[in-house]
Formats: sequence, C-alpha cells, structure tokens
Amino acid sequence: MKFLPVAALAACVAALSVPAQADEGMWTFDNVPTADIKAALGVDITPAWLARVQGATVRLSVGCSGSVVSGQGLVLTNNHCAEDCAHDLSTPGHDLADDGAFAATTAEEKACPTLRAEILESARDVTPRVLAAGAGLTGEALVKAVNAVSSTIAEDACRGEPTHHCQVVDLYHGGQYKLYRYREYGDVRLVFSAGDRVGSFGGDPDNFNFPRYDLDVAFLRLYENGRPVATPQHLRWDPAPPTAGQAVFVAGNPGATFRELTTAQLETQRSVIAPIEIAQLAELRGRLVRLSEESPEAKRLADDLLFDLENDYKVEWGRLLALDDPAFMAARRAAEADLRAKALKTMSLGFGDPWADIAKLQEAAAALYPAQRTLEGGPNDSRLFDYARWLVRAAAERAKPSPDRLPGYDDSRLPFVEREVLAPVPVDAVTEQLTLEFWLAKARELLGADDPDVVLLLGGESPETLSKALVARTHLGDPAVRKALWDGGWTAIQASDDPMIRYALKIDPEARRIRAEYEERVIGPTDRAAEAIARARFAVYGASVYPDATFTLRLSYGAVQGWTWRGVTTAPFTTFSGLYRRGTGEPPYDLDPRWIAAKERLDPDTIFNFTTTNDIVGGNSGSPIMDAKGDVIGTAFDGNILSIGGDYGYDGAVNRSVAVSAAAITEALTKVYGADALVRELDGR
Amino acid sequence: MKFLPVAALAACVAALSVPAQADEGMWTFDNVPTADIKAALGVDITPAWLARVQGATVRLSVGCSGSVVSGQGLVLTNNHCAEDCAHDLSTPGHDLADDGAFAATTAEEKACPTLRAEILESARDVTPRVLAAGAGLTGEALVKAVNAVSSTIAEDACRGEPTHHCQVVDLYHGGQYKLYRYREYGDVRLVFSAGDRVGSFGGDPDNFNFPRYDLDVAFLRLYENGRPVATPQHLRWDPAPPTAGQAVFVAGNPGATFRELTTAQLETQRSVIAPIEIAQLAELRGRLVRLSEESPEAKRLADDLLFDLENDYKVEWGRLLALDDPAFMAARRAAEADLRAKALKTMSLGFGDPWADIAKLQEAAAALYPAQRTLEGGPNDSRLFDYARWLVRAAAERAKPSPDRLPGYDDSRLPFVEREVLAPVPVDAVTEQLTLEFWLAKARELLGADDPDVVLLLGGESPETLSKALVARTHLGDPAVRKALWDGGWTAIQASDDPMIRYALKIDPEARRIRAEYEERVIGPTDRAAEAIARARFAVYGASVYPDATFTLRLSYGAVQGWTWRGVTTAPFTTFSGLYRRGTGEPPYDLDPRWIAAKERLDPDTIFNFTTTNDIVGGNSGSPIMDAKGDVIGTAFDGNILSIGGDYGYDGAVNRSVAVSAAAITEALTKVYGADALVRELDGR
Repeated sequence: MKFLPVAALAACVAALSVPAQADEGMWTFDNVPTADIKAALGVDITPAWLARVQGATVRLSVGCSGSVVSGQGLVLTNNHCAEDCAHDLSTPGHDLADDGAFAATTAEEKACPTLRAEILESARDVTPRVLAAGAGLTGEALVKAVNAVSSTIAEDACRGEPTHHCQVVDLYHGGQYKLYRYREYGDVRLVFSAGDRVGSFGGDPDNFNFPRYDLDVAFLRLYENGRPVATPQHLRWDPAPPTAGQAVFVAGNPGATFRELTTAQLETQRSVIAPIEIAQLAELRGRLVRLSEESPEAKRLADDLLFDLENDYKVEWGRLLALDDPAFMAARRAAEADLRAKALKTMSLGFGDPWADIAKLQEAAAALYPAQRTLEGGPNDSRLFDYARWLVRAAAERAKPSPDRLPGYDDSRLPFVEREVLAPVPVDAVTEQLTLEFWLAKARELLGADDPDVVLLLGGESPETLSKALVARTHLGDPAVRKALWDGGWTAIQASDDPMIRYALKIDPEARRIRAEYEERVIGPTDRAAEAIARARFAVYGASVYPDATFTLRLSYGAVQGWTWRGVTTAPFTTFSGLYRRGTGEPPYDLDPRWIAAKERLDPDTIFNFTTTNDIVGGNSGSPIMDAKGDVIGTAFDGNILSIGGDYGYDGAVNRSVAVSAAAITEALTKVYGADALVRELDGR
Repeated sequence: MKFLPVAALAACVAALSVPAQADEGMWTFDNVPTADIKAALGVDITPAWLARVQGATVRLSVGCSGSVVSGQGLVLTNNHCAEDCAHDLSTPGHDLADDGAFAATTAEEKACPTLRAEILESARDVTPRVLAAGAGLTGEALVKAVNAVSSTIAEDACRGEPTHHCQVVDLYHGGQYKLYRYREYGDVRLVFSAGDRVGSFGGDPDNFNFPRYDLDVAFLRLYENGRPVATPQHLRWDPAPPTAGQAVFVAGNPGATFRELTTAQLETQRSVIAPIEIAQLAELRGRLVRLSEESPEAKRLADDLLFDLENDYKVEWGRLLALDDPAFMAARRAAEADLRAKALKTMSLGFGDPWADIAKLQEAAAALYPAQRTLEGGPNDSRLFDYARWLVRAAAERAKPSPDRLPGYDDSRLPFVEREVLAPVPVDAVTEQLTLEFWLAKARELLGADDPDVVLLLGGESPETLSKALVARTHLGDPAVRKALWDGGWTAIQASDDPMIRYALKIDPEARRIRAEYEERVIGPTDRAAEAIARARFAVYGASVYPDATFTLRLSYGAVQGWTWRGVTTAPFTTFSGLYRRGTGEPPYDLDPRWIAAKERLDPDTIFNFTTTNDIVGGNSGSPIMDAKGDVIGTAFDGNILSIGGDYGYDGAVNRSVAVSAAAITEALTKVYGADALVRELDGR
C-alpha cells in the first residue's frame, strides 16, 4: 500500500461540483460531451457509435462490467469478475479460482450458478412522476413513496417479459429518475478464466499499484434455452498494441462515487464510517489470513473471501487518505461554497438551504450508523445468514402488494432473490462460522455489551458458541431445504425449526425498526435536501455535469498515458518480459507453471498492462477499453493508488486506470493456453 | 466498545493549555497544588504526607504502578500488571495467567523473570545544564546532545551504586529537566495474582467500561539477597468501603499524555498515525484471535499477546474518537490561540513562532513515519527479533563512550538490556512466526513492494517464508546462546551464523539511518520548538500547570463519584452480587470456579469496583487509591471509555478512573482464597 502524502490530491479540487475538466466524467449515454471529446481527442463520437457500444456493453451481477466480443455471445471481462463463479464450480481437489478454467468446446462450458448479465436497451425519463409521488413528503414516508412508485414504473414496463428487467435509476441524487430497460441473460457460462496466479499476479501488494503484470481476463458466454446467444451487435477485437497518447474510451458500470455529497456528509464518512469500516475489514482480514494458513483447503476457502475483502480494505484506505487530506477537503468546501452562493442567489424563494439541512442530519447519521450497519447490514459474507434473511423477508414481503415491499423484494427483483436462494452453490461451515462469530463479536464491541440490540443478538451466549451452534445445526446449506422454505412461504417459515431461520425471525423486527428509523431520520430528509441541491446544480451549471456513479452505463474518454507524481514518472506500459523479471517464485510473485513453460514461445516485448486517463471506478472492472473506432484494445481491471481518491473527485494529473491489452490476451491465449478456437472467434474468423 | 458522540468531549476544552480545572492534573510531587486541594476537598496535603506516599509508591518495569503495603516488601498492583510474570512462570499444563497464582508461604514465591520495581528517592533540577548542552543546536545534533548530557548526568549521579538507578526526565517538553534517583529492586516475586477469569472478568468487551466486576489485583514482594526487603515506609491498608464523595488521591506513574502537543501535531496524530496504528492492531488482533481458536495451547499463547493488544487497540480507538471530534479540536485550537497570542505579545524578541515551526515539520513527520515505524520500530511482540536487535546494538554501542551511545544503551540502562536478553523466559515459535510474518507483510503494504527498504527487509522472499525460516533456524530462544553472544560482544556477533543475528545485522544500518533522519528532520526541530512553547507556558501561566505524563511519579486528587452522560447516570459502585448476576457461563463472562464455590460465604453487598474523578491514564494501573490520611482503600486498574480522551484533555464531568476496593480485596482473600496470612500482613498484624 502506497501512501498518499497530504498534498497529493490538492490538484483535483477545482473540478468538484463544477463543470468537468478534460477527461473527467462518467457520462450517461444521453449526455456524452461530444464537442469536448472532439476538442480534446479529435474523435467524433456519433449516435451510431454510441448505440453500437451500448448494445455490446454488459453489466454483470457480481458488480462488474464486460463487453460482447463475438457473434456467439462471447463476453470479455476480468478474471476477478469470474472469481465467484470459478470458486462455486471448484471442488476440493480442483481449485478453478486458483488454476483458472478453460472450456475447449461449448460442451465444456459450465453455467455460473448465480451470475447474471444485462445489456441496456433503452432509458426513458420518469422524473416528473417520481417527484410527484414524493411531493410534500419527508422521512421514511418519502423513501417509501419513491421506492413504491419506482417499483410500479419498473414492473409495469417489463410486465410479462421474462427476458427483460426494468429498473428506475436515481441520477444526480434525485435530480433525474430514468427507467432503464435491460435485456437479461440468466444463463452465463464460464469459457476461460486465467486463474489468480497470473490474473492477480502480485496479489494484494500490487493491487492498485503500477507497474503491473496481470492477465486479469476471463471470457463468459451468454446462453439462452441451452444454446449460445447470437449477438450480431458486438464489438470488434483489435489485438494491435496500444500506443502512448492514443484516444481511448471505456464503457461500463462504475459502481459508486461520492462527488455530489456535501462536505458535512464527507466529514461523517471520514470520522464515523471510515474508521469503523477499516477497523472491521482489517480484523476480519487478519482472521481469514490466519485461517488460510491452517491447511491448503482452508487456504482455498479463505482466499475466496480475502480477495474481495482486501480490495475493499484498500479502497476504504484510499478513500480515508483523500478525506484526511486537509487541502482536498478545503477545496471541496470552496467548491461547495461556490455552488451554494450562486444557488442561494439565483434560485427561487422557498428553496431554503439544503446544505445546512444535511449538516444538521449528521448527528443522527453518526448515532444510528452502528446499529443500522450491524442489524440491518448483517454479517459480512455469511451465505447461511443471508439465506435465512432472504427467506424470512421474501415470505413476509410476498404477502404485500409489490410497491409496498422492502426494496429488492418487489415483483421486478424477487426472481433475483429466488435465484440467489435456490442456486446450488457450496457452503462452507468453517468460513461461515468465522464470519458469523466476527459479526457478533463486533456488534458487542461497537454497541456495547449492555446494549439491548446486543442482548437481542447474543441472548446470553458468546459469539463463539452462538455462531458454532447456528452453523452446525442449520440445514440451509441444502438447496432442497431452501426450496421447500421458499415454496412454503410464510407458513413454512413460521413452522420451521431451523435455528438460522428462527434466528433471522427473532432479529428481523428490530432490524426493520432500525431501518425505518434510519430512513425517517437520515435517508428521507437527506434525499429531500439532495434533490434541492441537484436542482441547484442544473440551474447553475446546466448540462455540463455528470451524475455520481450508480452502477449503470457510462462512457469515459481519455488517452493512454503514464503519470508523474512527487517527481517520479511512471511509463504507461509493461511487457511480458517484466512479468518474468518480477517472478520470485514466492507468492504472490510466483508464476503460473503454464507461463513458465511458455516463456520462450512468447514475444517478450508484448505490451501486457497499460494505464489510461479514463475516469473510472470499481464496477468498471471488465469494461472494454476501446479505440476511436470503438474496437476493443483491452479490458480495464484496476486503477493506480491515486485513483481511489477519484471516489470523491477526479485528478487528471495522476488518476489512472489500469488495463490488460488485447495484444497480450491474444498472445497468451495462443501461446500459453493453446486456445486457438477462442482466438479465431475473437478475430471473427 | 462504546461510541463517543461528536459532542461528547466538548466540555473539556477550556482546560487545555490553561490552568487546570478542579480535579485535573498529574502533579509532580514538587508542585502539588495544596491550596486548590484544600479548597476543593478540604484536605491538607502536608510535606510529610507527600514524603510518605512517595516512599511507598512503586514504578514497575512492565509499565505499571504499585504501592508498598506492608513492612515486608509487599506490593499491591493489578493482576494485569503481573500478567507477563504469570505467563512466563506458566507451563503448558498450568496456565498461571488464566488461573492466577498464590504462594501461601514466602518459600513458594517465585521470581518474575524480567520484572523490576523502583521507588523514587529524590528529584533534582538539572535544567540549566541540559539546556546549555543543546544551546544553538537543532536536528539530530540537538537530540544527541540532550541524550548525551542526560546520560552523563544520570551515570555520574548513580555511579557505583548497583542498588540505585538514575534518570534525567524531560518535563514540559523541554521546559524542565530533572534528575530522578530511584531505589531499584531487581528481584520481584509473585505472591498472589487473581488470574484473568476474575481479574479481567468481562474481558475486552468490558474493558474501559463500567459497571465493572473485576478483581484486577496482584501482590508482589520485593526481595534483596534472596530475602524479603524490610519496608518500614509503607502505606496502611484500610478495608473500609469507599463512600460517595469521599476525597481520594492516586499516586503513580501515568504513562503518556499529549496535552501539550500543538494542534498541528494532533492533526498528524489523527490523520497519519492513528489510522495506521488502528488498522495494524486490528489485523494483528484478527490473526491472533483465529490462532487462539486452533487449540487450547494456541489459545494460551495468543491470549497473552491479545490482552495487551486489545487494550492498545481500544486506547487508539478512544484517542481517534477524541481527535475526530470537531468540537474537541476546535477548542484545542482556541486554547492554543490564547497561549500563542499572549506569548507572542509578552515574550522577548527573537522568540519566533514555535507553533508555526512545528506545523511546518508535519509534512516530514508524516512522510517519514511509515519507514521509521517499520524499520526502527521493528515487529510488535517478537522476542526473537528483539533479542537479535538488542544483542547487535549492545555489542556495537558498548564500543563507544557511554554518552555517545543510542538511548537505552548508556551505562545506566545497559544492565536492563542485559537482563532482558538473558532472562530465561519461554519463547514460542508459533506466535513468533505470526508476529514476524505480520510485520513483514505490513512493511510491504505500508511502504510498497518496490520500496528499497522493503527489498532490504524481504530480499525476494515472502513474509511467510522468511519468517518461518528465521524462527525455525535461530537459536536465540536458548538463554545460553544469548549469553554467549552477549559476553562475546561485537566479535561474537560478527562471527555468528545465527540467521536472526544476521538479519538484525543486515537491516541495522538502514534502521539507524532512518532513525537519524527522523531525528534530524522531525524530532530535533520539534524539541527545539517545544522548548520555546514550554517557556511561553511558564511565562503566561506560571506554576499552575502540570507536565504531560512521562511515566514518572505524579499525584492526582479527586473524589469517589459516578457520572452522567447523554442523560444516563452511572453510579460509582458495583458489588459482589452484581458479579454473580453478570456471569453467563460463557467467556468472557464465565466465573472462576473458586468464586462459584465461595458465593455463599461472600458478603454480596461488598463494594467491588468503584469510580473516581482522578485524572489518570495508562501507567497508573496498580496505583493505590488513598484516602485523606494516605491509607490504601483500593487500587486503580482502568478508566471509563470517556477517560481515553483524557490523553488529550481532562473533562471532570465524565472522565472517571475505575478501581477495586480494598474492602473487596480483603473479603476475597479471606473467603475465596483462604489467604489469611496475606490479610494479616496487610492488616499489620
């Protein structure tokens, strides 16, 4: 982990809450700044270009992106985006996550148990209807009204179309509501994954760092009715190496940014939320690292959780560094003051001061966060607990009209819950017990041993004893048991003597009460104020702003470029020869045996990884890196350490995305894996 | 862990850097505010009272305090202060740390392998000489000059007196230097320790919380020439229960406070140091917690480290809460501005602006901290590494004149190093490997895999492999090997092929270089500026200020009192009956079997633990709680959660110390442990 010095993020200040600087922005496809792109890069982005890219850009339910790169439903994404699938398809003797997977023929392509893929077909403005539903309301009532109308709009739009999924997306924090209609693929199969050894070569130490040497690549295939989907609308593959300064575009689904939050909200993030998150992730990481050293099998189980956990940890750390930077925060305050002054001067009377309103809410936000996080948030990475909660809540919610249900349980989302619950994925008792015990222990630590919620959670038992008993005695690891409970509904749930179901039932009323209180006192009033700020932003800056990331389709433009920081210049390219130099034989710098064997066959000068100025964040993993023509020249898989501050603001001087080149992928598929058929498919032959 | 709301520490602001409020202060015995005490509590503190208390107050080398409570060298302290000793005297079948220890006769009292006890005999002002030695210097030169003159003064004062130890103490951050002369006891034996089950009943969840039910009590005995030391100057034991509002005094050695730091230094503490410390302690804790679940023996080994680690973690957490409190920091800034304005107005020309000087140093402080912490700080809790470093450094330093050596290696301190190195304490390979691996892994994370210091530390190996190899192949676990290397000096060190010695030798030049750079660019200039601020403070506020804690003798005055926070009032007392109500049978709320057996014999209304307003911090553990006469009515062992902010400022409304009553100790010794002889000794019979 590299350290951001106090002054490192100062340069990105000017861009915050004001029109975007060059290369900045995660633009919705209906508001791409084509004139700016033409001016910056000399590239014409036409409606046809955008339509073709939109039709081939994929959203994956694991929180990743991808792109369709052949006419037979082949999807390019990252190895780490196929990690859960590879883990679920592994067996004790055969660790696909570590070794990688390769299906030489479609007959060998296995379905990922829970993975879904979506392609955005259309977006329609529904702002007036959503705003009207929430008009005059605040608190929990506002949250419920917006949820209800969003759910109704989405369901009405996709009713009777099992191949489609509709979603109302909140853009600009209440400034716009759009109905997104997705073509959905529920049968996604694993074609190729590089495996962790070369997919995450350098492991956690190299994560968010560069120079980098990772083949973080996987291919999936979309299926329907047991056959590959025909995808005439796909991107072309171009294995030509990227060149310095080349214009590049990234389409994908950036997950979450916080650039529109007020400085009061950022202070809560820094002083309340980040310390808790970092401390908890660090301790859970420690428990899992030690578990991983107990046996090879323990290592396999622990590593699956550690991969995401260590990534989350580094993201939280990078965010805290930005929030702890006085220059960064001072600049945020200045940018906010600018917008606020202009807004308060030009907006109509009765607008109030939404920034002050949000500041006042922070005391409640801080006070309620630990209980909300614990009881409503639930444990980190416990499938058994999640099954129990989903079963209990789905049974209770199904009894209500769809718009009145908890978010995620309306008719448009319920099938996804059902699929998660019923999917036959392996459940491991050791990690389940570990994560449950950890959750209970931290609940006691965070809230205090005498807190009524802790008394409810523990009931006089210790975290160790209770977690052991729940995991040992539940039968929710069996998909058939889950199926019976799902089908049996509320009657079956109430009659169940499964201890995990009883436990989820016991704590559910209090979890719901805390959720409602949090919505009433924090979320609802914040949404109301944020909506006013969004109006102000449009009024002051017009259309030259982009919305915070929402894990929906965005376009970023930029160039292949290195960076200079603290006087040190980092070149934008690495090559295969660098990989071999870096290999020490010791994890995480131990080379995959197939790569050792292939060394002499590979062109050592092949450009392996490269950096670009694209403004992307987590969720963009697996996104295509495209040239001016919209052809795929690589896939994005990471950012440099300085890019994490991008969650709060983009700094074009140092914020870099990290990608694998299509050139390296083609070379490796051919000479390391002998995947000639796959290369032919990419080449359109 | 309870949560401090944002406003919780606001009340303590006014006291910072200005004359102390009622009950505030860790007063040196030459500057006790007797008039204020008389006014606040109606108690006359006479020179005779102070002399008697000073002569019976003990400093323990484990970072604790204690008091002599009989004429036969009996010392009262905390169970957790005897924890290391109990652990060192344990055997795989017999865990004294967990079970406690009781020597029914002096013949059964076993020597604690590394524990030393000291009683302060005199303090003499040496400020002019120390200041003269540093005059005109800055940077590393200033640090070295002050170290050298301090070492010379201390050695000259105690030369030829093996029963004494002299130390020059820096008070008020360069405002005063005092020569402290201690009577030293190197043979300290374990008489009684309650064991963790009741000594730390409630474990980490209850630590820093109240109500509390802990017999955190141990008795040690000072020996000389194989016989108990006669201690006519001891405190009287008074098993009368404490009463609400009663005046109470605490003598002891508060370890470290930061009340005199500038706000710029506190910002570095908050934004740079605290996040690293918390994240590292949390992850190491996670590794040890998981280790503790692997087997009962692993649990014994891990718990020994976890006890201190979890305490450190909670302290760091409590500190961060204070530093993250905007009201607290705003008030610190206001207090600093007051002193600064008055000082800049009244001090002579040429005084400069030391606050601005310190602010400018923070960039270097932040930049150098990770390497300083890693290479010079070394691993957390690795005895084998410490042995190697001590042996290597002692051999190198002994070749130099005493004043020129690294601090800790001058002639007055070298015997303590020798004793630590030669003491026959058990060394466990599992925890050694774990802590070494963790240190190396975090070095890579903190500094980056490509950092030259990390390349030096790892040399192409992984943290796992290197730590395993070092621990498996070193022979430093054998006291005889250490003795040979100690006696052989530099020649033996250079000739040694022990891998841990080779490793310590390899990294020592770089560790020393970083240390020197840190002294040159941070410590030295900071000391120079702090000295100026100390002069300013005396000039503006006179003698009505007390120095930051330095683990030297201080007196605190206060009263037995509960507190009210967020509308909730907590009474100052718990009783034995509460202990039995709280016992759930599950760790850490599982009762000691002896206490279960003794339940009917004990008076349930005995006052067990109680809280007082005394301004104390870590290092005061084991301190006597005395009544107006100076008799012992209890021993301090903790503070409430709100007391941790006391590291930066005292808030009399909510800052409380937590103690065990002498009444409970007498009752338990009699009825639980049948320690009648010990009770007779306490009673002076």
